[in-house]
Amino acid sequence: MDLGLLHDLAQPNTTKIILCSLDGLGGLPRPGTGKSELETARLPNLHVLAKRSACGLLRHVGPGITPGSGPGHLGLFGYDPLQHPVGRGVLEALGIDFHLKPGDVAARGNFCTVDAQGRITDRRAGRLATDLCVKLCEKLRSVTVDFAEIVIEPVKEHRFVLVLRGEGLSGRVSETDPQTLGVPPLHARALDPSAERAAAAVNQFVERARPLLRDAAQANMVLLRGFDKQPDIPLFPGTFRLRAAAVAAYPMYRGLARLVGMDVLDTGPTFADEIATLERHWADFDFFFLHYKDTDKAGEDGDFDAKVAALERFDARLPDVLALGPDVLAVSGDHSTPSILAAHGWQPVPALVSSAYCGADHVSRFTERDCAGGALGILPAQDLMPLLMANGLRLAKYGA
Amino acid sequence: MDLGLLHDLAQPNTTKIILCSLDGLGGLPRPGTGKSELETARLPNLHVLAKRSACGLLRHVGPGITPGSGPGHLGLFGYDPLQHPVGRGVLEALGIDFHLKPGDVAARGNFCTVDAQGRITDRRAGRLATDLCVKLCEKLRSVTVDFAEIVIEPVKEHRFVLVLRGEGLSGRVSETDPQTLGVPPLHARALDPSAERAAAAVNQFVERARPLLRDAAQANMVLLRGFDKQPDIPLFPGTFRLRAAAVAAYPMYRGLARLVGMDVLDTGPTFADEIATLERHWADFDFFFLHYKDTDKAGEDGDFDAKVAALERFDARLPDVLALGPDVLAVSGDHSTPSILAAHGWQPVPALVSSAYCGADHVSRFTERDCAGGALGILPAQDLMPLLMANGLRLAKYGA
Repeated sequence: MDLGLLHDLAQPNTTKIILCSLDGLGGLPRPGTGKSELETARLPNLHVLAKRSACGLLRHVGPGITPGSGPGHLGLFGYDPLQHPVGRGVLEALGIDFHLKPGDVAARGNFCTVDAQGRITDRRAGRLATDLCVKLCEKLRSVTVDFAEIVIEPVKEHRFVLVLRGEGLSGRVSETDPQTLGVPPLHARALDPSAERAAAAVNQFVERARPLLRDAAQANMVLLRGFDKQPDIPLFPGTFRLRAAAVAAYPMYRGLARLVGMDVLDTGPTFADEIATLERHWADFDFFFLHYKDTDKAGEDGDFDAKVAALERFDARLPDVLALGPDVLAVSGDHSTPSILAAHGWQPVPALVSSAYCGADHVSRFTERDCAGGALGILPAQDLMPLLMANGLRLAKYGA
Repeated sequence: MDLGLLHDLAQPNTTKIILCSLDGLGGLPRPGTGKSELETARLPNLHVLAKRSACGLLRHVGPGITPGSGPGHLGLFGYDPLQHPVGRGVLEALGIDFHLKPGDVAARGNFCTVDAQGRITDRRAGRLATDLCVKLCEKLRSVTVDFAEIVIEPVKEHRFVLVLRGEGLSGRVSETDPQTLGVPPLHARALDPSAERAAAAVNQFVERARPLLRDAAQANMVLLRGFDKQPDIPLFPGTFRLRAAAVAAYPMYRGLARLVGMDVLDTGPTFADEIATLERHWADFDFFFLHYKDTDKAGEDGDFDAKVAALERFDARLPDVLALGPDVLAVSGDHSTPSILAAHGWQPVPALVSSAYCGADHVSRFTERDCAGGALGILPAQDLMPLLMANGLRLAKYGA
């Protein structure tokens, strides 16, 4: 559905909407039992909720396409992820909750090792310790270049974020990482004329970083890739006419929510902290994006039992969410992370929508298999937001 | 599906198709029983028919979008309602079964009350009595303007339709209704250069109407909005190569059928009259659009029991429709009107398609919940017409 049309139809109301994203929610049956994580877990609260909800499966990008966290969440937020790609440099910045400003060009940086002739011998500098990465980033902050301010933030091990801040910069800059060993880093090139200042700034930065790193035997050079600007995306609160808040402990999801213009609330590291934050700000917003990370972590680790336990921990907290009395509650996820894959998967993700007007279906268990027969059908993730708006009586009729 | 492609594939046959639209068909469970109107009603004939039909749910505009009657029926007729918007003035004209001609510009008019300084004090003139509206419209018919013939038709209470008829008129004219009190009506402006003649005609009309209404204390001025022309829409009979007739007692649906070029048959006010009309013209057409209004009226009134009764009355007449032996029979609606909403809803609408070739599914009851699991899936309303054509063996193979 066109975001402009949704904006035209959006109307104020006092209803409250919670969108609960269980990261990596969907799973696959474990060989042996033939049951998925959702089918194995004891989830009394989710199943009772599913019984009075409309259920279905969300597909975030397209059939067979495995979404990253960026596209997965943009879909949940109502955007077509194929129309709003988020570059790698920007995602890296969002992943450390870095506050990108409009016009910033972000890149993913690696410390690497080069030999006496400047040829790369290790693209990740032996995955150097994070505290060393922090110290080297501190050094790089002294570099100045023409045309742009340089901002450097460490991420983890050999990874850091480079941000170019200034007027008239473009992200259309080629990578300096040749993605192979035995050759020197590449010069950055402008991929179109608008990027010449940015490319010059990148090359100056690399040349001025080199002498500063000379003594850091293991990490004596940098590689840069994934130059990009923030996507020019219609903001969520304006589009849907919602005061929207994100409750997310993990930086990546805070960053994605900030990208679309949500207020990102301060919260502690646990899901209990997140729920306390939700309760504290209940009066202040119309829409809450509530993120639960544990399901994805367990799935990525390939730990079926841990994912079952993470689902059960969520289920135990669900009554606290329901106690707030949201007019509309959706439970779904940004992608599946089947434990037997130990990675994100392309499988569509169970979803439920609960409200006084959600309608009924025959689904009484919140599982992949059951939700496939629900009233929502199998729908693109970006269709969820219009449904939540409608269930909150926040969309006017189309046409007389 | 592209209408041009459907036209290319359409081929003649002697099969007969009935599309039966139960206005506002879909509903929601009543709190207390947990059963929707369709689940509460005794519908022996519909359920038996559903058992030998392919069932599904129709979505008319998009997930979460509540369709008006115009978009709802255009979807049933095979058009994408987002690509063929129908303006408010045109719908108002269709709603009184006014025969718009190509090039006509229609607007919705309100009689309003203005004070001695010309400032609006009541935008609806106290919802004046319809017979007074008729008399005032009679007065306004004496107004003449440059560039256009003026046609005035009363609607109901304070509402009337203004039609500008003439060469080279455009509907891109701004509204004279300021939508607020304490200010005078606005001048009409051309929203693009092509609309200058129409805007001038509108302003002349308003200036010449003013003295005629001076003595009508309650309704001494007019407000005009929703200027629009008929959409330039490919006509239904040509597109599908069908002799198509509409059997509809209510003016709005007669108007919508005429908009797409169907023959609109004279019929009496009851559904029994409509069925008699259908029987009388059975030999003359290939396709019949049969409209049943009572379901929507009861739903709009928020009268659950009345909607149940309306469904049961339809069910009792269904054998008369089946007795005609249509090769293809579809039963669905233009939108849902859940009694608990007392308004149109966004919920997808049950649909069944019955023919010798419709295929089977597990659905044996014609309800929202059951149809969600049917062989048609949840499909855009405009996909119904190609299915009906195919079931009538009226579409050639695509590609060799």
